[in-house]
Amino acid sequence: MSNSYGEKFKITIFGQSHADAIGVVIEGIPAGITLDMLLISKMMARRATGNAPFATARKEDDLPEIVSGVVDGVTCGAPLCAIIRNKDTRSGDYDALRSVPRPSHADFAAYCKYGGKNDVRGGGSFSGRMTAPLAFAGAVAMQLLREKGVTIGAHIAQIGTVVDDPFDPVNVDAATLNALKGKRFCTLNDNTGAEMQAAIAAAKQDGDSLGGVIECAALGVPVGTGDPMFGGIENEIARCVFAIPAVKGIEFGSGFAGSSLRGSENNDPFCLKGDVIRTETNNHGGSLGGLASGMPVVFRAAFKPTPSIAKPQRSVDLLTKKPVTLEISGRHDPCVVPRAVPCIEAACAIALVNLI
Amino acid sequence: MSNSYGEKFKITIFGQSHADAIGVVIEGIPAGITLDMLLISKMMARRATGNAPFATARKEDDLPEIVSGVVDGVTCGAPLCAIIRNKDTRSGDYDALRSVPRPSHADFAAYCKYGGKNDVRGGGSFSGRMTAPLAFAGAVAMQLLREKGVTIGAHIAQIGTVVDDPFDPVNVDAATLNALKGKRFCTLNDNTGAEMQAAIAAAKQDGDSLGGVIECAALGVPVGTGDPMFGGIENEIARCVFAIPAVKGIEFGSGFAGSSLRGSENNDPFCLKGDVIRTETNNHGGSLGGLASGMPVVFRAAFKPTPSIAKPQRSVDLLTKKPVTLEISGRHDPCVVPRAVPCIEAACAIALVNLI
Amino acid sequence: MSNSYGEKFKITIFGQSHADAIGVVIEGIPAGITLDMLLISKMMARRATGNAPFATARKEDDLPEIVSGVVDGVTCGAPLCAIIRNKDTRSGDYDALRSVPRPSHADFAAYCKYGGKNDVRGGGSFSGRMTAPLAFAGAVAMQLLREKGVTIGAHIAQIGTVVDDPFDPVNVDAATLNALKGKRFCTLNDNTGAEMQAAIAAAKQDGDSLGGVIECAALGVPVGTGDPMFGGIENEIARCVFAIPAVKGIEFGSGFAGSSLRGSENNDPFCLKGDVIRTETNNHGGSLGGLASGMPVVFRAAFKPTPSIAKPQRSVDLLTKKPVTLEISGRHDPCVVPRAVPCIEAACAIALVNLI
Amino acid sequence: MSNSYGEKFKITIFGQSHADAIGVVIEGIPAGITLDMLLISKMMARRATGNAPFATARKEDDLPEIVSGVVDGVTCGAPLCAIIRNKDTRSGDYDALRSVPRPSHADFAAYCKYGGKNDVRGGGSFSGRMTAPLAFAGAVAMQLLREKGVTIGAHIAQIGTVVDDPFDPVNVDAATLNALKGKRFCTLNDNTGAEMQAAIAAAKQDGDSLGGVIECAALGVPVGTGDPMFGGIENEIARCVFAIPAVKGIEFGSGFAGSSLRGSENNDPFCLKGDVIRTETNNHGGSLGGLASGMPVVFRAAFKPTPSIAKPQRSVDLLTKKPVTLEISGRHDPCVVPRAVPCIEAACAIALVNLI
Repeated sequence: MSNSYGEKFKITIFGQSHADAIGVVIEGIPAGITLDMLLISKMMARRATGNAPFATARKEDDLPEIVSGVVDGVTCGAPLCAIIRNKDTRSGDYDALRSVPRPSHADFAAYCKYGGKNDVRGGGSFSGRMTAPLAFAGAVAMQLLREKGVTIGAHIAQIGTVVDDPFDPVNVDAATLNALKGKRFCTLNDNTGAEMQAAIAAAKQDGDSLGGVIECAALGVPVGTGDPMFGGIENEIARCVFAIPAVKGIEFGSGFAGSSLRGSENNDPFCLKGDVIRTETNNHGGSLGGLASGMPVVFRAAFKPTPSIAKPQRSVDLLTKKPVTLEISGRHDPCVVPRAVPCIEAACAIALVNLI
Repeated sequence: MSNSYGEKFKITIFGQSHADAIGVVIEGIPAGITLDMLLISKMMARRATGNAPFATARKEDDLPEIVSGVVDGVTCGAPLCAIIRNKDTRSGDYDALRSVPRPSHADFAAYCKYGGKNDVRGGGSFSGRMTAPLAFAGAVAMQLLREKGVTIGAHIAQIGTVVDDPFDPVNVDAATLNALKGKRFCTLNDNTGAEMQAAIAAAKQDGDSLGGVIECAALGVPVGTGDPMFGGIENEIARCVFAIPAVKGIEFGSGFAGSSLRGSENNDPFCLKGDVIRTETNNHGGSLGGLASGMPVVFRAAFKPTPSIAKPQRSVDLLTKKPVTLEISGRHDPCVVPRAVPCIEAACAIALVNLI
Repeated sequence: MSNSYGEKFKITIFGQSHADAIGVVIEGIPAGITLDMLLISKMMARRATGNAPFATARKEDDLPEIVSGVVDGVTCGAPLCAIIRNKDTRSGDYDALRSVPRPSHADFAAYCKYGGKNDVRGGGSFSGRMTAPLAFAGAVAMQLLREKGVTIGAHIAQIGTVVDDPFDPVNVDAATLNALKGKRFCTLNDNTGAEMQAAIAAAKQDGDSLGGVIECAALGVPVGTGDPMFGGIENEIARCVFAIPAVKGIEFGSGFAGSSLRGSENNDPFCLKGDVIRTETNNHGGSLGGLASGMPVVFRAAFKPTPSIAKPQRSVDLLTKKPVTLEISGRHDPCVVPRAVPCIEAACAIALVNLI
Repeated sequence: MSNSYGEKFKITIFGQSHADAIGVVIEGIPAGITLDMLLISKMMARRATGNAPFATARKEDDLPEIVSGVVDGVTCGAPLCAIIRNKDTRSGDYDALRSVPRPSHADFAAYCKYGGKNDVRGGGSFSGRMTAPLAFAGAVAMQLLREKGVTIGAHIAQIGTVVDDPFDPVNVDAATLNALKGKRFCTLNDNTGAEMQAAIAAAKQDGDSLGGVIECAALGVPVGTGDPMFGGIENEIARCVFAIPAVKGIEFGSGFAGSSLRGSENNDPFCLKGDVIRTETNNHGGSLGGLASGMPVVFRAAFKPTPSIAKPQRSVDLLTKKPVTLEISGRHDPCVVPRAVPCIEAACAIALVNLI
């Protein structure tokens, strides 16, 4: 079932954007863990607001209510269920969309799949809002990974055509990753960040939107983590990352750029660093044959520009089968990428906690 | 378990490059299907030789023996097991590699994961040879999909820096896809194909290797195919495609390039084509919210250059913990991309047959 | 993960007896179903009170709150999450039990499994209370099955040594099964029911408890339903039925008694009833080779006597490792069997809805 | 998929009685295990012949060929595939059965499920022969369990109306269990065994068959093994045991008999044995709330009498829809119970190795 993921740390996400609630059930958290509520609330806050001024005008305090699995703040071995109430919903905004699908949204496909019975309010179960329970589960996964020495962090690598400095794939360290989490706009290079914010503001001004790329790194993943064939590091991270709306691509290490290199250029020689075997370069992005090499796991995820834009667009009325010009009102991010940074971290954490 | 995939059409792949056999068990094939052995043998042949002169010197007739699930050529509802004997193995070639991991191969990670007990002969279970049962299962999946009106085909989109013409993502048709399958070197543009072959020959001459990109399209996927969140078209295709060794990236539709567009540029307006609702462009690559839109599903997979090269490389002896210069003998593709084309089709077919 | 079950109609149960809430997420309900809330509330009420005067003194209105998956009473294709708040909890009752395991309860094993961090209040996640979300999910499954012509019903076949009339395994009809659901004490024979109630009252009087047997029948299961080996009718029903606390055995058709018959006595000859192929007898309980035969699926589940009794019992203090005499206070059923009848129906429905 | 079982030690069984081969793929065996081929071959031999004179006249040497997953006798971490060729098949015997289902066999249900395309030869994939790969996998599981201190053994508890002595559920020891495996007819009481053999001979003489009960015990299962709700010891053992053809019931501990006891009689008081906490009696059969209590896991499985009997029986021709008198030729066990003893051990081992 497609709302569940994982065998060891299994999550089941439920809800729709304008249902009473969204939430997640997590099975497989060991008993006796004191939940780090600060870590969780920071993760939720970064997703809710992007630490940035460009997020949607919709206000969600997004405080999860943990209704099971925890006794006096400590996990008891039973499944943890966290519920987030949907409060600030304006379903009226969406009435006009019932029969006119928004370009590049799931509306049309969902209409066909569910015979028109899908919840169209706020995008229903296809809304970016579904990443709130994902971020919650990701925060719990990050806490468990932290105890095993794994650190995950991400930055905005690109917005529109503005490109941030990349991670150093060999030497990126935990301090760098953690520092990013405190930033209002998390780029490695603040000047780039300023340019990106200007680009977003300009797109918003034009009633338009932007896409971008997020780069994520996971440090401390034990050598050999991952399984052959369908259960490799890349398979599982990709499977989780594509659960985030608007993601259209993923690449590990040198990725697509590596495809135009020769083997002698792209291969990563082994070397000794003290007693530890490492590679001199990290074009493999920390994964070889689906197994962790001990080097940083580094990947990049491509986000399409937000499909909800204020500009008029061409669509078709599904009932009358007539062309329609659509103007979308409602509150929408001109760019989801800043808020998606913790979601990418969460997806990575959920994949890795199941493999380690 | 990572060697299994699928819930409706479930495959379990077994074997190692130099074990007695490799093979696959397929559960979920309906009873009463007359297996199209020609389709299967063509698929296997394309993988074995790439229809091309650049494949590995290792000779494998790769004739699968179907030991169960079929009575007089017709499926009986029981799991189908196909076995491919490994014949032309020269395990001696690999003895020297036991403690010296080849750069950018799975050797080192596998050594750590399995405590040195992994099968190093020919790459063991991490060998590209494991794609033979994948291609077999993919051929069966393609037969089932064909009966539902789905056609899958792929071409070599890039080798090194040579780039083929792309698919027309809106109008690509089944005739184009099927014609590619008969080509000795399957590019859309034969001139490009000739350049690519020259590039491979040059790399081989230099004791080096090349990577590339394969573009794949699936036509006729019913609108609404796919499931939300973790079970979308992108999630499942990505999960299968990353099972192919050397794949380091995947993107759907406009993918990474789309990340630098604005919403008004990247959005695909809906339109009517007769009575059918389609999109004018196909930057979404046939998937919206993880669900098929009815447009061609189009994706690109990035392959790293073959890590096995004749040039000397730096590595470390795992036992002595000393730096070593490694020279790899044995028979290796200077470029796996041509032979990987049917593997990409197979991975796509296996993912889709589970969703439809 | 053990709190989840099913591939087509997948349930994930969460909660503990004295947590804020218990509940269930159901994936796989088709979109467009108007939930039959009356069916659901009757099922919940039968479980909560057993339609009988002997249920626990604990009052639970057990009204499920459906927080997702339903729009205006109609399913929308997204996972349905139903939450039941725990209100009338007296956790203080259980403090003494923290280190002294109750005989024949899960306490000791759970203490060891979870390092003493398990939720001991009210039995935590091992409480019979966890059957409330099971009953909810079972009611939804029964609604879906009803639309496919399947009727499920059960009766109390035995309490202590008092034995009810059995179902006629060949001719049991839907009217009989449905009539049972309206009974305050659901036996086929009311005289037997009166005797059983007297036996329960007597046990209660003695500070003791009783076990029993429930017999369940499913009519209209299409011939061929079920899968070979691990996915047969018996495998799946057994797997679900053993999720109900206190079940210690299950048998289909002639079951254990059939083991002492000869083949010629136990075999069920095929015959024609009009144009339909049936069997003259039904010692096979509706399942052959794990597949439905078209005859009523009939099985019996054995319940141990409620382990919580007022009589003093011998136990051991886990901390002091000293023998202890334990007297259990709190509110407990002298016999869970009457209230378990809808739970058995629910387990059967959940198994079958996944197979059909 | 119903031919697969397990998450940690996952088996996928394939084949039909008269296909080229039957076999099993096992995923999850740790690398570095030297397979105990003697244990495996003894297990296979006990199943093939029952160590007894009453087995089917069909001769199968049942030597498994291990085609992958093992290098020089040692597991390498890749999936192990074992193939058993079907040699002594006389498919002609079954031609007459194509349209006339044998009473109490899977024939009719399979005919309906697979549209008449199922493999009828020798019962196809519903044959008792499918327990050969189960026994193989069970032997591997028993080797892994042995290293964790777990011993599993079973005896024939009943044939027809002849009843063997039961295990002492509190004190049964490994020596007793292992001694049973060497017996030609494995009862605890040899006199009972002789009576059972006489009963089988008499039934055979009459062209009839017998059923029976097997009792199985698992010692050394660590306290807390198993998971709540759907993943308990009982759920998983039941799920595996019902994969064995002819099993119609299962009970743990006092089982059905315990249903007529009072709580004060059936409860098992905790006590100290040295420093270890145990129970004075073992009516719970080693499982409380689905979790192992540390006491022997004891269960009983009911087998129906072999449905294939020489006596004429009533059936219906599926094509002509006319009543038919059926006389079954071919080679059949008058009682499968003796040969099923290692299968029950195997099913128990496969369930437990996934839980521990």
